[in-house]
Amino acid sequence: MRHLLSTRELSREAAIEILDIAEDMADVQQREVKKLPTLRGKTVVNLFFEDSTRTRISFEAAAKRLSADVINFSAKGSSVSKGESLKDTAQTLAAIGADGVVIRHGASGAPAVLAASGWIDAGIINAGDGTHEHPTQALLDAFTIRRRLHGAASRGRDLDGVTVTIVGDILHSRVARSNVWLLDALGASVTLVAPPTLVPVDTGAWPATISYDLDAAIDAAPDVVMMLRIQAERMNAAFFPNSREYSRTWGLDDDRFRRLAPSSIVMHPGPMNRGLEISSAAADSAQSTVLEQVANGVSVRMAALYLLLSGEREVSR
Amino acid sequence: MRHLLSTRELSREAAIEILDIAEDMADVQQREVKKLPTLRGKTVVNLFFEDSTRTRISFEAAAKRLSADVINFSAKGSSVSKGESLKDTAQTLAAIGADGVVIRHGASGAPAVLAASGWIDAGIINAGDGTHEHPTQALLDAFTIRRRLHGAASRGRDLDGVTVTIVGDILHSRVARSNVWLLDALGASVTLVAPPTLVPVDTGAWPATISYDLDAAIDAAPDVVMMLRIQAERMNAAFFPNSREYSRTWGLDDDRFRRLAPSSIVMHPGPMNRGLEISSAAADSAQSTVLEQVANGVSVRMAALYLLLSGEREVSR
Amino acid sequence: MRHLLSTRELSREAAIEILDIAEDMADVQQREVKKLPTLRGKTVVNLFFEDSTRTRISFEAAAKRLSADVINFSAKGSSVSKGESLKDTAQTLAAIGADGVVIRHGASGAPAVLAASGWIDAGIINAGDGTHEHPTQALLDAFTIRRRLHGAASRGRDLDGVTVTIVGDILHSRVARSNVWLLDALGASVTLVAPPTLVPVDTGAWPATISYDLDAAIDAAPDVVMMLRIQAERMNAAFFPNSREYSRTWGLDDDRFRRLAPSSIVMHPGPMNRGLEISSAAADSAQSTVLEQVANGVSVRMAALYLLLSGEREVSR
Repeated sequence: MRHLLSTRELSREAAIEILDIAEDMADVQQREVKKLPTLRGKTVVNLFFEDSTRTRISFEAAAKRLSADVINFSAKGSSVSKGESLKDTAQTLAAIGADGVVIRHGASGAPAVLAASGWIDAGIINAGDGTHEHPTQALLDAFTIRRRLHGAASRGRDLDGVTVTIVGDILHSRVARSNVWLLDALGASVTLVAPPTLVPVDTGAWPATISYDLDAAIDAAPDVVMMLRIQAERMNAAFFPNSREYSRTWGLDDDRFRRLAPSSIVMHPGPMNRGLEISSAAADSAQSTVLEQVANGVSVRMAALYLLLSGEREVSR
Repeated sequence: MRHLLSTRELSREAAIEILDIAEDMADVQQREVKKLPTLRGKTVVNLFFEDSTRTRISFEAAAKRLSADVINFSAKGSSVSKGESLKDTAQTLAAIGADGVVIRHGASGAPAVLAASGWIDAGIINAGDGTHEHPTQALLDAFTIRRRLHGAASRGRDLDGVTVTIVGDILHSRVARSNVWLLDALGASVTLVAPPTLVPVDTGAWPATISYDLDAAIDAAPDVVMMLRIQAERMNAAFFPNSREYSRTWGLDDDRFRRLAPSSIVMHPGPMNRGLEISSAAADSAQSTVLEQVANGVSVRMAALYLLLSGEREVSR
Repeated sequence: MRHLLSTRELSREAAIEILDIAEDMADVQQREVKKLPTLRGKTVVNLFFEDSTRTRISFEAAAKRLSADVINFSAKGSSVSKGESLKDTAQTLAAIGADGVVIRHGASGAPAVLAASGWIDAGIINAGDGTHEHPTQALLDAFTIRRRLHGAASRGRDLDGVTVTIVGDILHSRVARSNVWLLDALGASVTLVAPPTLVPVDTGAWPATISYDLDAAIDAAPDVVMMLRIQAERMNAAFFPNSREYSRTWGLDDDRFRRLAPSSIVMHPGPMNRGLEISSAAADSAQSTVLEQVANGVSVRMAALYLLLSGEREVSR
């Protein structure tokens, strides 16, 4: 694998390969010395045009556990903020010898531009671009679902027949987009539930069913309910006067949570608005995978860095 | 030792153990390769809700010299500033596999909340919480005093009979609090000297004598004079119109410094306001331990990280 | 070598030694594991009083490839911004055991003050001080010229007889100053071309020819044309109403670029203002060394860190 830009391009086989390597990385996390020498001498740059401490430290921990050198580059207060182009930044990173660039950018498609540009030979990982994609989030979600369903027997498995309901602001969610493509590739069936104003116009082309009725979606007993984070301004755009009203119609509140099957799992990419899109009872329940998702994020990002930066890339240089 | 939250909880034996391990760490600093492999594969997060470059780099240097991976997490500009709770932050750090968390927080008790919460299994080191405690500062102060008094024969010793006078804004000083408890545990006698408006109401319960007369305290010939940093707004709260007036009554000026015994030592946690709470002559004298304190800070923090993160903790997991 | 403060102090022999070691470091960058254990256990502090992400990450990559521990210290938001003196900062860095300090400062001479002060025993590298010097930039420029001219046979060579024309805001350029001294030491002939208002008053004492006619300088067929970055406010100070007018008189536009000999090389320290001091055609041409300069920067900085921090310094402690 040369870059990880989106999940839309991933075949079932490629996705399963990443998840299987992530299983190996999760095993490493259980050791006393939870570190591999695999990427010693490699340089990974965290190039963040938007603040995201959680994602940055997850990638930083992942790269360091593979013994890579990590350089953090926050575009704020840098020459980028003085008008330097993405091209000049990319060429600078290439010239200092970056082997991998983890990029978070406000503009959809910026990581793909970087990867296609020829400005830099490094492996590019999209850590969230505008409202487009956040592929490592989807991979960690799929990894989490697979582990919950199959436990120690997860390796090599897909998600055939698993039903996943994703709820909230689909329109602005790169997490939802990445999950739709990946879950479909892995054989799961996806239902999207959102206020009509927060559904993208092009969902007709997505491998997913659209619903505007959260209660019906809950009562359909999905294997997985994934709640998205809602931002205050989006809630207003959906014509909700306050968070209580929003929560009543689109939140996984205590009542809806109780109606789920005991075997169904509750996911959230974090950080959660407790009491808004998800109740604390749901978030802190045994069915919730919120913390597993964060932990699995390190394993999945180790797998992605490993696939992009070890082995063959050297040969091609 | 599981956490280092305050010095109040430390027994004489536990305190001496930390100081003795810090002696070993100080020896490591003298080697050509001043690094130990002890914490290889461990991840230490510097979680700073308040800026403190000096304390942060001291802990960062300490952790790196033990071969730990260090991740800096400044709460400014992070999801914490967007309203994420301490609980969510802690659980995120737990999930990415933090073995140790060094926390600086504006709220007294935040590190203790973190340690007691069950949100995270990591060892917690309080790097300063509100006006409560700053235990590694007190430990490095005690280490510095012990080394000055006993030199190479310091190991195993306490501070029995040593007289220490702490001067300045006791009310707001976590450094003073941590020192009072630790110095008492180690057998020293502590006198606190401060303007009446800057003495806490509960000092009746402290193992220390209160004085409002700096000249008398100086003339009592203490073994150690520790000057605290005064902030402009506190000086005003103590009814001083300007720094010259404050300095005249509560500063270690040249005259008071000359009246100290040549064997007495002068301490300050830094950064100093030269000419305010301490004169440059006093600060730069051979009796001053200001720079030794900073250097000893790395050794003491290496000792604390070692005690919290190596060995037994693994077994309990 | 104890410090690297300016190029003015460098003999031809010393300069060639740095460039030769940088050749070795460039070879290391070609290996699969592009890392040396040379500075293991050493601590390098990047002490940046001005933002410069490009320079900081170049030094950070260089130090990490020599296995040093790197601590970034941005003076913004630190106790420095609360009025701590350079002395106190330096003594703090000494006390935590910094072996090398890479300092970027807005005041000309600050690195020299640090090196001469006795406050800190570490090796000091000037990473740009006011309008004074930026020695590693000049070294990477000389390294780049030498490699272009002599290729694999560069080791041991100087720049005898090479003609270099430096164009732009000489007055405020530390890059120009460092290059003038170093290129002269290496035997090159330097011509400075600038608007009269952007020429320093003391250039009579510089080993360089001054010209106010860019076209004549171009037609003199120099081996090297080095364009400096112009800042908007300087352009105004040179009485140019807009960037098109500035570019017409002082920019390496397409026409001037075409008049250069095919063997001449085009340099820029970056980040470039494309279309202002340099056209995109010139910047992206095969004659341009802009990206080589950045790549060579890591090798040159590795060489400087190696010379300052390995070997003999230990003995002197």
